[in-house]
Amino acid sequence: MSELIAFLEPDRSVIARRAAIIADLADLVPASSLITDARELVPFDTDAFVSYRRMPLAVVLPETTTEVAAVLKYCNRNGIPVVPRGAGTSLSGGAIPQEDAIVIGVSKMNRILEVDLPNRCARVQAGVTNISISQTVEADGFFYAPDPSSQLACTIGGNIGMNSGGAHCLKYGVTTNNLLGVKMVMFDGSIVEIGGKALDAPGYDLLGLVCGSEGQLGIVTEATVRLIARPEGARPVLFGFPSSVAAGACVTDIIGAGIIPVAIEFMDKPAIEICEAFAQAGYPMDVEALLIVEVEGSDAEMDAMLGRIIEIARTHGVKTIRESQSATEAALIWKGRKSAFGATGRIADYICMDGTVPLGQLSHVLEKTSEIVARYGLRVANVFHAGDGNMHPLILFDANDPDESRKAEMAGNDILKLCVDAGGCLTGEHGVGIEKRDLMRHQYTDADLAQQMRVRAAFDPKWILNPSKVFPLDGRNGAYADETGETAGKTAA
Amino acid sequence: MSELIAFLEPDRSVIARRAAIIADLADLVPASSLITDARELVPFDTDAFVSYRRMPLAVVLPETTTEVAAVLKYCNRNGIPVVPRGAGTSLSGGAIPQEDAIVIGVSKMNRILEVDLPNRCARVQAGVTNISISQTVEADGFFYAPDPSSQLACTIGGNIGMNSGGAHCLKYGVTTNNLLGVKMVMFDGSIVEIGGKALDAPGYDLLGLVCGSEGQLGIVTEATVRLIARPEGARPVLFGFPSSVAAGACVTDIIGAGIIPVAIEFMDKPAIEICEAFAQAGYPMDVEALLIVEVEGSDAEMDAMLGRIIEIARTHGVKTIRESQSATEAALIWKGRKSAFGATGRIADYICMDGTVPLGQLSHVLEKTSEIVARYGLRVANVFHAGDGNMHPLILFDANDPDESRKAEMAGNDILKLCVDAGGCLTGEHGVGIEKRDLMRHQYTDADLAQQMRVRAAFDPKWILNPSKVFPLDGRNGAYADETGETAGKTAA
Repeated sequence: MSELIAFLEPDRSVIARRAAIIADLADLVPASSLITDARELVPFDTDAFVSYRRMPLAVVLPETTTEVAAVLKYCNRNGIPVVPRGAGTSLSGGAIPQEDAIVIGVSKMNRILEVDLPNRCARVQAGVTNISISQTVEADGFFYAPDPSSQLACTIGGNIGMNSGGAHCLKYGVTTNNLLGVKMVMFDGSIVEIGGKALDAPGYDLLGLVCGSEGQLGIVTEATVRLIARPEGARPVLFGFPSSVAAGACVTDIIGAGIIPVAIEFMDKPAIEICEAFAQAGYPMDVEALLIVEVEGSDAEMDAMLGRIIEIARTHGVKTIRESQSATEAALIWKGRKSAFGATGRIADYICMDGTVPLGQLSHVLEKTSEIVARYGLRVANVFHAGDGNMHPLILFDANDPDESRKAEMAGNDILKLCVDAGGCLTGEHGVGIEKRDLMRHQYTDADLAQQMRVRAAFDPKWILNPSKVFPLDGRNGAYADETGETAGKTAA
Repeated sequence: MSELIAFLEPDRSVIARRAAIIADLADLVPASSLITDARELVPFDTDAFVSYRRMPLAVVLPETTTEVAAVLKYCNRNGIPVVPRGAGTSLSGGAIPQEDAIVIGVSKMNRILEVDLPNRCARVQAGVTNISISQTVEADGFFYAPDPSSQLACTIGGNIGMNSGGAHCLKYGVTTNNLLGVKMVMFDGSIVEIGGKALDAPGYDLLGLVCGSEGQLGIVTEATVRLIARPEGARPVLFGFPSSVAAGACVTDIIGAGIIPVAIEFMDKPAIEICEAFAQAGYPMDVEALLIVEVEGSDAEMDAMLGRIIEIARTHGVKTIRESQSATEAALIWKGRKSAFGATGRIADYICMDGTVPLGQLSHVLEKTSEIVARYGLRVANVFHAGDGNMHPLILFDANDPDESRKAEMAGNDILKLCVDAGGCLTGEHGVGIEKRDLMRHQYTDADLAQQMRVRAAFDPKWILNPSKVFPLDGRNGAYADETGETAGKTAA
């Protein structure tokens, strides 16, 4: 708290310390890579989570791994918190500075370094956008699979930090399944390479550990990612159902039959209405729930798979089945789905939950979600990656009404707890960040959390990297001393 | 060394200490789960690596997770090394006790606990054999994908320890891609559950970290694994080439074109001769190298994919193309391949390397491998998972000739270094174990190894779990003190 006050009304010693840090940074990186002017710092005070804002002490936008290393080494030596940042599209607050921190943004490191088709991979800098990888190899018939809705803006560095997913991850997996190697700067400025073009690596799977670690184990500056051959054709098909429960049960049965389409997206009535009003995607309006099922391959393969899916959908009383008849129609169907968050933002404030449940629990959790939100007197729209069990209830509320805001947050917490209790988890692809750090106690025991923090401390002994994210803020000091009497981590403040 | 002498001629204090430990263990587990008789201990003194033998102090074969926890807690408190063991099929010595250790074998924990088709997974105890999972769900049209050649015997616990692969992992991935969760006993006897039926989990990817950690981070007692729908049909096809280089280049081009068959297995002339003599699989004998390419799906899908593969093979001068005409013929083709190691063992002693290289390097590494082995005056047979770049040169030698044995080992080291220098790595699926621990220095810098050992210490602060595996034996003490002055790990002795 004393630091917060110091921030609001910085005294002379704080001002002097900041000036000294900025002067030191100016020796480490070119002037064009250092932002210290208050107005220029504003865009870095939050991310797509937006619930919190705090101005960073300074922002560094390095152009090389060596510059990242110099800054990180300096910050570690002086105990200065560092917040890594991609494009700031995090939905869980992963890129928001919560301390008097240096933000290290990778936006200038945006080059594709190598395309290696015989090894089906590309080596890129951390700041390249997700979409630009696919665009680069499109003419050769390849693409990079994970496709977050923010893929036009979000960076591969941010994707690695959050282990991002997307609509087409049902078949191809999320970021961790498509990442082959990284170059990473460690807390002390040393530069390591983990993984690479060869299958697997001896020793521990540090690559898997780094993916999804929300910038707490190091700063990734380069990535080697898997490229996948574009299929002969792809076809999204709309299935309209008389109820959300029927649509959910249909998803469970499709996957249970061993059929893996490229995508199975779910929209309930409120989501259909919101998206249709925005995108005019041609969604049927006389149904209570919609599945967008995309199949791919040759026409014969698509027909065969669709035949089996339609058979299953019929057993759940499907009312409408509509295949896209052209590339334009297919693009429109996806435009409707991918604009869901933006379209919702036009009609109300909302918070988007990111719980994941075992598929057998889909219908149950959908029903309970409605009950929870109704109990708080709010509305909910559901639009999510159903094949993966990755739910995204959007809780609608009025942010100008403090009571509604509080209720929305409470409803969100209740929903995530419901997901955990159903055998699922707090997050599928958005990460823990600030948003869900306190809920980690509902997912994990103290022993579990202590073990994760011991692993963290093995990478960042001074706890300077994105310090206030992922773990509950209380109980970090001493609460997880292990048997040897050592304390694994320290709070940053 | 003093401990080795103590083992050879145990003095009274050692004998008394052992007796005390055995008495304590007898209080923790039923008599039927404790082996202390020297004759009964013999089967546990080595594994399929067989280059080293050492009798364990005792073997415990627990029937429950609670028993594992009791033993591990006791061993940790008293600083007694523990070596976890599945079926002892490790090819890198992962299950060989190298200290006066307690072996904890999971062979009695061999029940399938749950088959959950809607969530496409099964929950099993760590001691179930790999094949039994597929057998259990076969009638429902599902299977468990990773298929090590030892799948009749090896356990899922051992598979997790080594992140095992197999011929059909090209399409479906290795163990880590098919593992959803584990129940694991930690060093101090606490029992944790990591992962589960839901997609991903918040916090760090500890499941990925545990998979392939060779029993050093805990003892897995239960696993939740992914089940995959059996395809409509599958068809292995033989492609004979005029040279190994041509076959290698063909593999590179198939994968480079974005085609992913279920399996692409490679056999050079010596391997073809050895396997054909043993299995009478009908392999063509007038070629220098053979690819077994398996495609799957409907007849139309298989025909389409095969058409593209044949086109590519023609550009590399393929001499023979032979499709299996019946299930019997298909089984015979695989029998030949899967018996390669056994068949080789009938004609010579051999060591099997497990290097992995980027696909673009296949032909280069095959050529250099021949040169290396010829330089030592030895012969080599190559039979491996080519689509994954996972090479298995079998170096043939006479184990009764100390000079040849030494040369074989040196040639093997040279080959693995060649793989690393080609951008690959020391192991694809057999693990590091004892075999490759010293070569880890060729793959990793001291800083890399220090970081891995810090992670290890975060799970096993007293360094009691499978202590002599994975990391080079020298340089463990003090060599990896971090910036805070703490030493990450300790040697067991």
